[in-house]
Amino acid sequence: MKPIEPYKGVRDFYPEDQRIQNYIFDAMRRAVESYGYQEMNASVLESTELYTSKTSEEIIAEQTYTFTDRGERSVTLRPEMTPTVARMVATKKRELGYPLRWYSIQNFFRYERPQRGRLREFWQLNADLFGITGPLADAEIIAVACRVMRELGAMPDDFVIKIGSRDALNSELLAQNIPQEKHKAIASLIDKKSKMKDDEYTRAMQDLIGENEFVIRESVDVIEVRTILESWGIENTVFDADVVRGFDYYTGIVFEVFDTNPENKRSMFGGGRYDNLIGSYGSQDVPAVGFAMGDVIAKDFLETHSILPSLAVSQTLYLAPLTDKDMLPAALTADRIRENGVHVSLGMKNAKIADHIKTAVKLGVSFFAVYGEQEFSSNTLTIKNLATGEEVVTTVDEIGSVVHKKN
Amino acid sequence: MKPIEPYKGVRDFYPEDQRIQNYIFDAMRRAVESYGYQEMNASVLESTELYTSKTSEEIIAEQTYTFTDRGERSVTLRPEMTPTVARMVATKKRELGYPLRWYSIQNFFRYERPQRGRLREFWQLNADLFGITGPLADAEIIAVACRVMRELGAMPDDFVIKIGSRDALNSELLAQNIPQEKHKAIASLIDKKSKMKDDEYTRAMQDLIGENEFVIRESVDVIEVRTILESWGIENTVFDADVVRGFDYYTGIVFEVFDTNPENKRSMFGGGRYDNLIGSYGSQDVPAVGFAMGDVIAKDFLETHSILPSLAVSQTLYLAPLTDKDMLPAALTADRIRENGVHVSLGMKNAKIADHIKTAVKLGVSFFAVYGEQEFSSNTLTIKNLATGEEVVTTVDEIGSVVHKKN
Repeated sequence: MKPIEPYKGVRDFYPEDQRIQNYIFDAMRRAVESYGYQEMNASVLESTELYTSKTSEEIIAEQTYTFTDRGERSVTLRPEMTPTVARMVATKKRELGYPLRWYSIQNFFRYERPQRGRLREFWQLNADLFGITGPLADAEIIAVACRVMRELGAMPDDFVIKIGSRDALNSELLAQNIPQEKHKAIASLIDKKSKMKDDEYTRAMQDLIGENEFVIRESVDVIEVRTILESWGIENTVFDADVVRGFDYYTGIVFEVFDTNPENKRSMFGGGRYDNLIGSYGSQDVPAVGFAMGDVIAKDFLETHSILPSLAVSQTLYLAPLTDKDMLPAALTADRIRENGVHVSLGMKNAKIADHIKTAVKLGVSFFAVYGEQEFSSNTLTIKNLATGEEVVTTVDEIGSVVHKKN
Repeated sequence: MKPIEPYKGVRDFYPEDQRIQNYIFDAMRRAVESYGYQEMNASVLESTELYTSKTSEEIIAEQTYTFTDRGERSVTLRPEMTPTVARMVATKKRELGYPLRWYSIQNFFRYERPQRGRLREFWQLNADLFGITGPLADAEIIAVACRVMRELGAMPDDFVIKIGSRDALNSELLAQNIPQEKHKAIASLIDKKSKMKDDEYTRAMQDLIGENEFVIRESVDVIEVRTILESWGIENTVFDADVVRGFDYYTGIVFEVFDTNPENKRSMFGGGRYDNLIGSYGSQDVPAVGFAMGDVIAKDFLETHSILPSLAVSQTLYLAPLTDKDMLPAALTADRIRENGVHVSLGMKNAKIADHIKTAVKLGVSFFAVYGEQEFSSNTLTIKNLATGEEVVTTVDEIGSVVHKKN
């Protein structure tokens, strides 16, 4: 019988895959928590009405998992986090303290054709700063995005932060007498520019604005943000009029982080200011700025730049009983070793030492020791480092110092 | 406009709620990792066929979120983890090393009427040990469950582990000539016994077994497991013939952890041995034993026993600029403090000190400091501990030792 496969377009995370996820998530966590962002979450199930006319219409209409539950409610598996955090801020607007800094590392769902970097379930860091308008808040969010890259091991010239402004775009369009109801469609078209052929883009733009023309110059908000970032030592930023982002809810600066690797030049992730979304869920606006970064692009970046370290199961000892009758004494010793803060995986089988070692290697465990009568009577173990082959003899109570316990 | 509510029967986790989740999850993680269990995961989306005739039929038919996707596939939001881990072990059976120890802390979905402790989305620790038959593996899984309780702060007499045996039940039923096809229904009935009236139960059992009678005594497997646990100092176990567990796939010992608090006596969570499930997904059986513990019951236990500590946002300093012109110097100082491993939440607003303190308290942050011209020229800060009111003057570079950095 053929084993049942995972659902199409989603991933299984075996421990070696999960270790990579955790490595990425830990870097994200360190970055955002150092700026005082606090973790929050909600359910992946949301009422469909949460997204109606908020997120990009294309995403809602064609790319969400939406179904009717047994109680006739329309439910959507969240395709992004922003509507959820906006709803939650709107609900407790008065009780919350501002500046409010929230983050989450959670999963999202889009019903797309699976392709490289675009899966039906993906994980994302979301970080948002609420209650503050102006360039200092904008600069902090970009600095946090930059810190995530640094915690992942990127150097400043491995990436560039391109900053645009919805505000500047809208002002210029108004100055050119291009009517407001076309602004969303124009932004959406500019967002797709890099994926279109030049003449195709020009034609589509002409359909929208006719004989009008517009040129967007670096606006005051972008200049201020870039100046603050520079004072913090963040110099890998540029103004880019073509950065507008796909979501309809952005109102001010928008930014995208680009890989500078010549073979992999592309937008990795981004964010921006959205000052009207929370008001649309409640009675009053709360200014907000945030960004989101996906796990797939992060892993891809680490691999492309060869900065993903090999991740063994550290702090862990595989303890192999020599014979069946050593099993219970080995289990008792394992408990004593755990008291010293070392993780112990007990090799619960009667096997040759070579087979035990093979198992420990398959498990990705860092340290190995045999337990027999000699170890029992001497109260010592010979700890083998499976990466280096190095062996150290230690007493049971001093194993912690050999296994380089982290905490 | 009334804010949009979360979907019915699920929860929003504001930072103060998420801190409790993380406290519980961290305890679970410490417990299972000390025994060498490795984290894994899969998608919440699974093919419906994964569950057909595996999980309890009642759950599949009436209690799952199942829908048809846009490609006409039947998809189910996972209601439990065991079929997923069994599928994944079956898929890579030969590449994996045994004993294989896996855990996950993830979310699950059941379409039930929301009630106390039973939500439509809930979180669960799952821990499973694969590849080993016999009482040592059974004992380890129970020891791990026990360790989770201890890491949560429970004392041994706060809970009791009741152990039964599907094996013993089935042998006794066979000995009494009760046909095999009735065994599942009998186990399912025994599982519901505590929720039924005595005469209702007796009648239902008579409908199944007629004039037959059976008495289940403590079987050899349970005795062996309890003896090993005792040798490890785990003495709060009893044999209980009525513990059979609801899922159809159990084959050997089964156990449930009961709260001993007289006002809250009830089964909190449990698990057992399931040696045939993996084989049903692949070509060969792999013996397995595991358990699952939910977040709701864990939090409830901590609250009932008054062992949930108050959880502030530790390691974090709220830095309040005294005036608008102190904002940028404060931001630069915040960066220097972060370099010393302290998290800094910058109070990005022009407000009175009392208002800043109010915000810091709302945010649950532990430490507070003002930043003005005096702090700039002296390069010192007065750090106020918001829990104790205590104030300490320190240089910017020595804040780490005041904020009691963990790492």
